Amino acid sequence: MGTQLTSRQKRMSVTNTAKGTRDFSKEQIEKRNYIFNHIRHTYEKYGYEPLETPTIENIETLTGKYGEEGDQLLFRVLRSGDFLKSLQDDDLRKDNLKGIRSAIVDKGLRYDLTIPFARFIAKNHGQLGLPYKRYQIQPVWRADRPARGRYREFFQCDGDVAGTTSLMSDAEFIPIVDEVFTALKLPKSVFKLNNRKVLAGLASSLSKKDALIDMTTAIDKLDKIGADGVNRELEQRGFAANDIKKIEDFIAIDGNNHDKIEHLKRLFEENSEGYAGAIELEEVLGYTEQIPLQNTEVVVDLSLARGLNYYTGTIYEVALKNVNMGSVASGGRYDNLTEAFGVKNVPGVGLSFGAERVYDVMEQLNLFPDHIGASVKVLVVNMNASYNPQYFKLAHELRSAGISAEIHLKDTKLGKQMKFAEKHNIQYVLIAGEEELKDGKYQLKDLISGEQRAMNLSTIIDQLKD
Amino acid sequence: MGTQLTSRQKRMSVTNTAKGTRDFSKEQIEKRNYIFNHIRHTYEKYGYEPLETPTIENIETLTGKYGEEGDQLLFRVLRSGDFLKSLQDDDLRKDNLKGIRSAIVDKGLRYDLTIPFARFIAKNHGQLGLPYKRYQIQPVWRADRPARGRYREFFQCDGDVAGTTSLMSDAEFIPIVDEVFTALKLPKSVFKLNNRKVLAGLASSLSKKDALIDMTTAIDKLDKIGADGVNRELEQRGFAANDIKKIEDFIAIDGNNHDKIEHLKRLFEENSEGYAGAIELEEVLGYTEQIPLQNTEVVVDLSLARGLNYYTGTIYEVALKNVNMGSVASGGRYDNLTEAFGVKNVPGVGLSFGAERVYDVMEQLNLFPDHIGASVKVLVVNMNASYNPQYFKLAHELRSAGISAEIHLKDTKLGKQMKFAEKHNIQYVLIAGEEELKDGKYQLKDLISGEQRAMNLSTIIDQLKD
Repeated sequence: MGTQLTSRQKRMSVTNTAKGTRDFSKEQIEKRNYIFNHIRHTYEKYGYEPLETPTIENIETLTGKYGEEGDQLLFRVLRSGDFLKSLQDDDLRKDNLKGIRSAIVDKGLRYDLTIPFARFIAKNHGQLGLPYKRYQIQPVWRADRPARGRYREFFQCDGDVAGTTSLMSDAEFIPIVDEVFTALKLPKSVFKLNNRKVLAGLASSLSKKDALIDMTTAIDKLDKIGADGVNRELEQRGFAANDIKKIEDFIAIDGNNHDKIEHLKRLFEENSEGYAGAIELEEVLGYTEQIPLQNTEVVVDLSLARGLNYYTGTIYEVALKNVNMGSVASGGRYDNLTEAFGVKNVPGVGLSFGAERVYDVMEQLNLFPDHIGASVKVLVVNMNASYNPQYFKLAHELRSAGISAEIHLKDTKLGKQMKFAEKHNIQYVLIAGEEELKDGKYQLKDLISGEQRAMNLSTIIDQLKD
Repeated sequence: MGTQLTSRQKRMSVTNTAKGTRDFSKEQIEKRNYIFNHIRHTYEKYGYEPLETPTIENIETLTGKYGEEGDQLLFRVLRSGDFLKSLQDDDLRKDNLKGIRSAIVDKGLRYDLTIPFARFIAKNHGQLGLPYKRYQIQPVWRADRPARGRYREFFQCDGDVAGTTSLMSDAEFIPIVDEVFTALKLPKSVFKLNNRKVLAGLASSLSKKDALIDMTTAIDKLDKIGADGVNRELEQRGFAANDIKKIEDFIAIDGNNHDKIEHLKRLFEENSEGYAGAIELEEVLGYTEQIPLQNTEVVVDLSLARGLNYYTGTIYEVALKNVNMGSVASGGRYDNLTEAFGVKNVPGVGLSFGAERVYDVMEQLNLFPDHIGASVKVLVVNMNASYNPQYFKLAHELRSAGISAEIHLKDTKLGKQMKFAEKHNIQYVLIAGEEELKDGKYQLKDLISGEQRAMNLSTIIDQLKD
């Protein structure tokens, strides 16, 4: 008895969206597009072109690109038709999970926007010409455990430049973020800047071999577990006490941005990789100092490590001041975008806006404009269904003049029709009974001011057009 | 040796999109959005709200909704993690394809926009209030054999009204189609109109039991196989000779729209369903006669049957005159949208634009405007990389004034930089060497007119802003 579902529960379950996915109706779409349009507009002003790639990719395009964890979180699509065709009864054993999976699956859902972009560049770089700048705003899918603010289907907004080593491209993401976040009226932000070569320089100066990844993985947790936590993690990962001290001192380098860079130059005087990183940081900073930023403080943050191993130069993360939300944009430079697809030596640099987080912050801080989407302007009230042909004509004349209009489909009580207008945020109602239809003079009521006047149609059109 | 791949073929294969899917870059996205924006704008003027549903749905939401063929064409998503969990080794047999499939799959890809809309209405009709008008422009996926013009991932553009029996809603799709196709400058179109009740009336007058579906399936092929072909098909489906004669006579009813309707009224004098269909046709026609249509001829077409069985009233298909493309929009009225999701008595009526076909026609007839998307306005030429900080500043000042700008990232030969501008459709180049940077007067060259003048930045901004 305890497990019996009520009819409501049963209905709930058959009408549910798949776990971790959402329907988006008018208000949410309009708010989301408000964010996307600002991002789109800014990217286009900087010469980025739109790109869209398919939702389904050949499974080989995706596997092995996102590490062990990513492989587990990929949504896999079953082969069409006889998906067991290539298997023998002998292969069909519960202990052959991976073997069966690779035989019955031939496609997967887009997991991020970077790998499809890399595939696209590898396929088309000849015609496109490099450098090529693209932005891409599309959903991705991950079989993650859904949680507050974490979905299995969510949007990413990426901008990348492929085929250039120019650090102007890295630096350009700073005014891009500044412009988008200023336009969205977000709180002031901190653009944290670091360089993987600086971290690699530090790692190569330590006694532990191949220390870079272990070191950055630990440093990356500084925000979460604090300095002591990082030290403990480093110890567990086999760093000697004097190495840990070196890392601690490195993270503690302070002063303004130029102080930090000068400090790094001295530190890496005899370490060419670390020194190169300091020089790159200096060049990127130099560009941004040429321009006024409205909303953004650029800070060299030596504790910024970025978990992903493919970054090789500039790395960055953007956080909003006094907002507890983590990074709302991030990215960096990578030496080789397309090698996995057989094309070598295509460096790139990119930025990803955390659009879902930006949306959540804007909701929390009430930053969306009040009437963000268009509402219908006027409701043609239905006094009597026998007038429907005249209402149909009236509505059409309004629409032909560019005014959005709806006819109330039923001749229900006037109060009910007014509620309909209110619910749909319609400001005006046009009331026409026998008399009005004969005279060609209609009652136009403004539901905000409460004003009501009799007017002919051309006067109504003139008034509603402003 | 014959099967050895060249390195190019190997690269081709790893960079391919999945079968039947496509990448969309700038030009295609802008053309597609040109169509979508007209559809969107028109729907909104008629009071339709946007809706988006998830790409992945629980598999139970999809199976059994699209017939046997649809079930085969669904893309199915493998359960995450141990997908074999609920199976025993005994179940894992090649002859247990469907059993295994239903155990290892829990989600599927959106196959059309109607079923997700029905699920959404069943879930939310309480809060939404009915009638509810939505439009939805999203891709769908079908594991069809790809062919010219047929893809496995393609866009649908649907508008539906849920929760009304008012035939004004049916009639409204006529000016909607007229407005969209006029705006797109498409050739004149024929809006073919019929009513399922008329066909049901005819079927009930025949000697064959449950003749409706067999009859409409045969009639639906008239365009493809001709009148003789339809007769043969009817014979094969077990219709008697005098029934076939009746159907032939019915399809041959001619005259103008009102002649046809009067003929139907006489024919169905004693057949309430057929008569009701004739009256509905008359009402819909009556509405459209109230309004001027710019591009569309409305024709009562008694041979129009629409294959889908869920239509119960008005049905329609739109074809372009003198264009060999089949229907470019279609739809109809259905008595019950949401019954499969446990909510009864929600009638609806909808229209689907064949956006891919419209795109193809517009390409063929060269109907897209010449410069449909925005190009970058000005390229800052790179005379010497040592001036990069100044170029960075110049580009930023242009962008801050709302002018899209790019810096050429390398100080290559001028000719190469001009080719870059040409390829990216950039009209102006700004040239600044040592002299110009010192004086604050830059060479602005219009690549279309060939004109070149030295100007300060504010003059350049004024000129490029128009």
